[in-house]
Amino acid sequence: MRHFRLVLEYDGAAFEGWQIQPDGVRTVQGALVEAAQKLAGGGEMIVRGSGRTDSGVHAAGQVASVSLETDLDAEALLKALNGNLPRDVVVLEAEACDADFDPRRQAKTKSYLYAVWNGPLRSPLRAARYVHIPQPLDISAMRIAAKELEGEHDFASFQAAGSDVEHTVRTLHRITVSGETGGELFFEFEGSGFLRHMVRNLVGTLLEVGQGRREPRSMAALLEARDRGEAGPTAPAHGLTLAWVEYGDEAGGESDTSPGR
Amino acid sequence: MRHFRLVLEYDGAAFEGWQIQPDGVRTVQGALVEAAQKLAGGGEMIVRGSGRTDSGVHAAGQVASVSLETDLDAEALLKALNGNLPRDVVVLEAEACDADFDPRRQAKTKSYLYAVWNGPLRSPLRAARYVHIPQPLDISAMRIAAKELEGEHDFASFQAAGSDVEHTVRTLHRITVSGETGGELFFEFEGSGFLRHMVRNLVGTLLEVGQGRREPRSMAALLEARDRGEAGPTAPAHGLTLAWVEYGDEAGGESDTSPGR
Repeated sequence: MRHFRLVLEYDGAAFEGWQIQPDGVRTVQGALVEAAQKLAGGGEMIVRGSGRTDSGVHAAGQVASVSLETDLDAEALLKALNGNLPRDVVVLEAEACDADFDPRRQAKTKSYLYAVWNGPLRSPLRAARYVHIPQPLDISAMRIAAKELEGEHDFASFQAAGSDVEHTVRTLHRITVSGETGGELFFEFEGSGFLRHMVRNLVGTLLEVGQGRREPRSMAALLEARDRGEAGPTAPAHGLTLAWVEYGDEAGGESDTSPGR
Repeated sequence: MRHFRLVLEYDGAAFEGWQIQPDGVRTVQGALVEAAQKLAGGGEMIVRGSGRTDSGVHAAGQVASVSLETDLDAEALLKALNGNLPRDVVVLEAEACDADFDPRRQAKTKSYLYAVWNGPLRSPLRAARYVHIPQPLDISAMRIAAKELEGEHDFASFQAAGSDVEHTVRTLHRITVSGETGGELFFEFEGSGFLRHMVRNLVGTLLEVGQGRREPRSMAALLEARDRGEAGPTAPAHGLTLAWVEYGDEAGGESDTSPGR
């Protein structure tokens, strides 16, 4: 068997998320499995991702591994997979990796981007990728709140309701809020790992701060509460993009999987 | 009757172009007429555009006029139209104008943007708005060719085949090529007016120059030929956006209709 590390870009609009599901449900992992199966000649084949993305969430640099019986080298595999994949997903990079490479467990840092259109009117040209907030957002207030969220914290308040993950401590290395009130705004989250819906719940909460409906300096208390009911709503999926995943040297390859465009 | 000048943004993907057509064909003008009719109470109503955009072409700042019997002022009209319009078109600005305002005849300058993704692999996140050219493009060569196309020329070679416009002299004030080989590239065209398919035929020709399939310094001869068969192919519609339309003072209002974002 040969083992490869892949970097993927996809438009999440027409996928029911990353994770493979029963026949008839269109998922990114499912599409990748189908594309790889055609190369594996009916033999065993394993496809793993760095983490699940929800239905409607996009990726510019998702990382996956694929193990299969093949004579193809990494370059030929990339071409063959792209020939078999649908138009809304592409393999940007492929390289040989160790058999024990685990894209989820070995991921060191992940980065997500969330896009907001803050104009008073809807923007048809941004509708597919930006979430529309018509009220002017107070960027300074959101930055103060973001500062309080950075660092190692228990993020139980921001975990999807009904999630059964017990260890909810994560480290958010950095939250950046860029852009301008009345225009395009971007939230960037860089962290050691993320709970289910965590980024979208953080964004939903920060947007409430930006609209003056929540105190900027209330984030420490909100983390302390460990109560999903205390945080803001889950922001819509279509504004979210998994930007890149970084690995330490132990993963045996480049340490930064950003497509580097 | 009251008369208004409108600035419109639309995603052209699901429209069969600007110009109104028989029932069942979805066009931007048709959507605007339908939205305005609900405000005109069955009375007479006229909707005009600064020019037709083709099927699939987008606009960030198309200009139109609407005349109708109404008590609404410009601000109320904007809100009412946006409430009636489908999600993929929006009125960004509305202002009262003279009865004789003609958005097509009085347009002084128009600007179009054409977007190209020049990576070796397709980009799902850019697929809706960028045209994919996998071969590395020579930007310097395209700039040399663009320079030769600037100015007042007879653009008959770049007019859609079968077009019956006789006066084919236009002035291209400026062609800008920005971005980088292997990444996102943008062509911007600013001119006094454009023939049918002219921008897309110019882009198709410049892309041949960028791929080394046509001499950069052959544009003067190509203009001279006045023969559509001599120019490059028509570049796809989905990469093209009508960016803005500018009017002189005689149009009775702001001179620049750019949405000013």
